[in-house]
Amino acid sequence: MATVSEILDRKGTNVVTVTPDTTVLDAARLMNERGIGAVLVTSQGALLGIFTERDIMRRVVAAEGKPGVIPVREVMSTGLTTTTPTSTVEECAALMTARRIRHLPVLGPTGLAGVITIGDLLAYQVSEQALTIAQLNSYLYDTR
Amino acid sequence: MATVSEILDRKGTNVVTVTPDTTVLDAARLMNERGIGAVLVTSQGALLGIFTERDIMRRVVAAEGKPGVIPVREVMSTGLTTTTPTSTVEECAALMTARRIRHLPVLGPTGLAGVITIGDLLAYQVSEQALTIAQLNSYLYDTR
Repeated sequence: MATVSEILDRKGTNVVTVTPDTTVLDAARLMNERGIGAVLVTSQGALLGIFTERDIMRRVVAAEGKPGVIPVREVMSTGLTTTTPTSTVEECAALMTARRIRHLPVLGPTGLAGVITIGDLLAYQVSEQALTIAQLNSYLYDTR
Repeated sequence: MATVSEILDRKGTNVVTVTPDTTVLDAARLMNERGIGAVLVTSQGALLGIFTERDIMRRVVAAEGKPGVIPVREVMSTGLTTTTPTSTVEECAALMTARRIRHLPVLGPTGLAGVITIGDLLAYQVSEQALTIAQLNSYLYDTR
């Protein structure tokens, strides 16, 4: 059964972080540049929370806050759900579905080891299905 | 193979729409209340675009726009990718992965029939896997 490690091997272990005092505006620009929907909020190596597009919509825009002034620590999501490199893809999918979250920080033996997104899980399953179909075709049409 | 219809049967065909002149602030509040990440933008029954959390971050917050003033038509995503009720779950997953999108409006014979999200697909796959595991257990441990 495929594990989180295998997904991280494909996508890389790069994690985009900001400090708690980063403004919402700066965080949004960073997420924009990187084409991502969330950044992890860390301080001196400790994982404090995650700041996502949903937080921007809910706690900044809908609340009429000022993105250039508000620090992410005031509007980030805390009480993080995390996973480990040895967890399976199925466990991550069940966890994301149950908690209704789209990002899972991965904590390894030496700290933050990556982030798994709902898009990573779907892409993994799509590529696995394509492989299965290719194998079935090869089995059915191999006339040697 | 499961189709879009089956997912819509479970989640319902309710679609949240706004008019093109709705402000970003009002749209964000509506998305907030409903706990959703996107609304469809329609005018007299025609589907003009989709307005998502990503649009809020990218085209409003990072661009320092004013949510209370900007209408969604100026910042929505156009050139929509859509699906149909008879498409398969696998086709939707492949489409969302290839286009890197999280929402697929479903167009039926009489117009807009629902929206399929990346979360719907993952939840569907999780429940299918649980069913397969239950069936395997029942097969393995049925001692009648």
